[in-house]
Amino acid sequence: MKTAAIIGGGVIGGGWAARFLLNGWDVRVFDPDPEAERKIGEVLGNARRSLPGLGNVALPPEGTLTFHGTVAEAVTGAEWIQESVPERLDMKQRVYGEIQAHCAPDAVIGSSTSGFKPSELQAGRDNPGQIVVTHPFNPVYLLPLIELVTTPANTQGVIDRAKEIISSVGMYPLHLKKEIDAHVADRFLEAVWREALWLVKDGIATTEEIDNAIRYGFGIRWAQMGLFETYRVAGGEAGMKHFMAQFGPALKWPWTKLMDVPEFTDELVDLIAGQSDDQSGHMSIRELERARDDNLVGMMRALGANDFGAGALQNAHDLTLETEAGLSRGMDGVDVTQPILTQSRVVPLDWTDYNGHMNEARYLEAYSQATDRLMIIIGCDADYIANGGSYFTAESHVRYLDEAHAGDAIEVKTTVIQGGGKKMHLWHEMFVGDRLVSTGETMLLHVDLKTRKTSAPAPHIETNLVKIAEAHAALDAPEGLGRGVGAPR
Amino acid sequence: MKTAAIIGGGVIGGGWAARFLLNGWDVRVFDPDPEAERKIGEVLGNARRSLPGLGNVALPPEGTLTFHGTVAEAVTGAEWIQESVPERLDMKQRVYGEIQAHCAPDAVIGSSTSGFKPSELQAGRDNPGQIVVTHPFNPVYLLPLIELVTTPANTQGVIDRAKEIISSVGMYPLHLKKEIDAHVADRFLEAVWREALWLVKDGIATTEEIDNAIRYGFGIRWAQMGLFETYRVAGGEAGMKHFMAQFGPALKWPWTKLMDVPEFTDELVDLIAGQSDDQSGHMSIRELERARDDNLVGMMRALGANDFGAGALQNAHDLTLETEAGLSRGMDGVDVTQPILTQSRVVPLDWTDYNGHMNEARYLEAYSQATDRLMIIIGCDADYIANGGSYFTAESHVRYLDEAHAGDAIEVKTTVIQGGGKKMHLWHEMFVGDRLVSTGETMLLHVDLKTRKTSAPAPHIETNLVKIAEAHAALDAPEGLGRGVGAPR
Repeated sequence: MKTAAIIGGGVIGGGWAARFLLNGWDVRVFDPDPEAERKIGEVLGNARRSLPGLGNVALPPEGTLTFHGTVAEAVTGAEWIQESVPERLDMKQRVYGEIQAHCAPDAVIGSSTSGFKPSELQAGRDNPGQIVVTHPFNPVYLLPLIELVTTPANTQGVIDRAKEIISSVGMYPLHLKKEIDAHVADRFLEAVWREALWLVKDGIATTEEIDNAIRYGFGIRWAQMGLFETYRVAGGEAGMKHFMAQFGPALKWPWTKLMDVPEFTDELVDLIAGQSDDQSGHMSIRELERARDDNLVGMMRALGANDFGAGALQNAHDLTLETEAGLSRGMDGVDVTQPILTQSRVVPLDWTDYNGHMNEARYLEAYSQATDRLMIIIGCDADYIANGGSYFTAESHVRYLDEAHAGDAIEVKTTVIQGGGKKMHLWHEMFVGDRLVSTGETMLLHVDLKTRKTSAPAPHIETNLVKIAEAHAALDAPEGLGRGVGAPR
Repeated sequence: MKTAAIIGGGVIGGGWAARFLLNGWDVRVFDPDPEAERKIGEVLGNARRSLPGLGNVALPPEGTLTFHGTVAEAVTGAEWIQESVPERLDMKQRVYGEIQAHCAPDAVIGSSTSGFKPSELQAGRDNPGQIVVTHPFNPVYLLPLIELVTTPANTQGVIDRAKEIISSVGMYPLHLKKEIDAHVADRFLEAVWREALWLVKDGIATTEEIDNAIRYGFGIRWAQMGLFETYRVAGGEAGMKHFMAQFGPALKWPWTKLMDVPEFTDELVDLIAGQSDDQSGHMSIRELERARDDNLVGMMRALGANDFGAGALQNAHDLTLETEAGLSRGMDGVDVTQPILTQSRVVPLDWTDYNGHMNEARYLEAYSQATDRLMIIIGCDADYIANGGSYFTAESHVRYLDEAHAGDAIEVKTTVIQGGGKKMHLWHEMFVGDRLVSTGETMLLHVDLKTRKTSAPAPHIETNLVKIAEAHAALDAPEGLGRGVGAPR
């Protein structure tokens, strides 16, 4: 069994503990804080909630978590030792003395330090070569970045093992070429933090406005491509050199209070343009643009599902579009003598699959949202659901009659087959223009959300649903109603 | 009909044109570049591909796009005029002269300038009050941030109209309290750009490593919460003041080459802590942590679907977990006498809905991935699909027998009902532990991806599928096979 020792709990140490534990390692913790077990338990709770479902394959069975009263006991048998004690060099060096007195000589000791260089941590140690910086980012259980910083005292064997173990728990070891104060990422964070302090202090923008300036703009760009690849795309066909020629001079302008800038020589331009070619040259600008847009749409839609950030903005915009799109939020204005318009939307980029068309599950997602819309129309809206009533789907049958593609405008029209009592039996038809591309038949049952058992809906909901069902009874029965998979047509 | 004039095309002007056009505005473009129509056409192509599906409601019908030979003609009848000419103040001022000689006196003139202050643009104009800065971010058709910068020359009426129009096309007007060189976001970009240039120049990291340091760590954090809310969460229960007390001193350390820092007074700490309370105080730290994790999981999974950035890292990690999870990539090691394990995963946070359980469409998503796994096992893998053969789903029937929740470990076991010729008839069963929570029956047909018509599979695929089907014929017929929605049990 693989064993990791966590020296120093808290948010960072707890995150490391969770990362190892959920990837099947045994974890031994030392932290003199009497609250350590509770604090790590809370981080672990968050990690168990989010990490196992991050990927599409089950993680191995959890390892065993134990707490120990001494460093000596915690590091026994550990092949990885992660130090996350407070950022005081004297304290860290004392802890390394204790660790190295008891740990295996070939164990890797990683430090979570955000500021110290590995040479400072190694100074004065008998076995400096087993100490490296492995700087993580909060939440450690989700974010994959680890800044791995080493010195000539570290052998290639130690470096390779550190990389392999970091990768094995789903993280990315970014191995810096040279040590430097604060490594890489925190230098950027510091630069932005200082600028942000000035902006708040000078009354230009509030903390909330600054956060919005980040998350509605470059933040979501950086989340997928970072800085240089983003600028490469911005430079367009003319390339990275052109971009730099255009924006380089801005460095000389008095735009920030931070003034020491590198000389913008041909050498520096060539260095950056060359590295950018190595990094992104396998994709054309057009391909990069499409990848960027695919990613932005996917991330913004993911935020929309949580009604957060740029996704919340989009949801608010959607609300303003409903009426013009022909969608209703009540019985008023709904013509019950015809199937009811319950979706009017465009197939998003993230609904397609390797066959180059809308994935089968996304048809059902559209039908699920069509059902939601019908529920809103009959009065089973967010308020009603918050009060404990809702519908659960019992079964659904989807037929794929024709392909739909990203960018296709689709409409769903819904017929109520049956609506009395607890039952809601719906028939959805999906159109691209006049073309019927799919049908979706679904049976739902009204439930009490507290007991999770079926129950009668509120009278006004049943009344509305029956009213529609009775009107729809005059329509022809849909072709394919009640059909099972593989039944002859 | 609402009409916008776009003065200056290119990537930014083209993005503005697309934003207005796809939100139902007529757009009139002036750009002396003979390539303008082609360039804007390309931006518009990207925008049509991505923006209409960003939300869940159809946009209004597109407006009409026209190109004009003079500024005078372009601004005729426009209520919004967006200037995106090159960043030269003399050129911009000349263009304003032309615009104002012909535009409606109550039209809003927005400038895309990233560097100039509105007072510089307004200087010397007869009607300075109609000129504001509306600084967008590339790609303008997707990113919602607009920095709206005004001066005392702008009336509240102009400011309100600018905000209203920006919001009406799905964007977010960030109204700066005071004008400042480079507004807000670009000051951060400049600060990071400078630091990044130093890191490349000094040989600490390459452009690719720097991009990875951003997108695998703080970039994806900032995409949802920005800077201050992220730090508020990092500060934990102790709050923003504690965070600042802990990290404030770092500002004095020699961490960047950029040294001018604000005095870290009690006043500044109180100002920031107070603004942070106003911004995020309605959520507890625990709630913020969960929102953060929900967003990170959603965004990283969205990136995973595109095999990009942090999502690509996760996909690679998933591959290393398959064998231990019992999943196969071929017939070897598959026991065909039993239903085949085709999914072993955990219900992710983004698969749940307002009923507090796994959404109906996500069951089908799991079955869709189970079908993909069976296809891989019989040899219909990515290489085969790249060569033009695949299976399309004809119909699916899902029964929801019990609830599944985020964090539940689920397994799907698949029985092949029929596998001869073009047909693949599958029966999926989904388990949480020993509990059967759902069944999914699906009929697929083999297709030629070029003609999009049914065709015979390659012999080795049919052989493998028939081999499984024949072995599975010895199993009891599944309860519910061939059932239609609403059929009696």
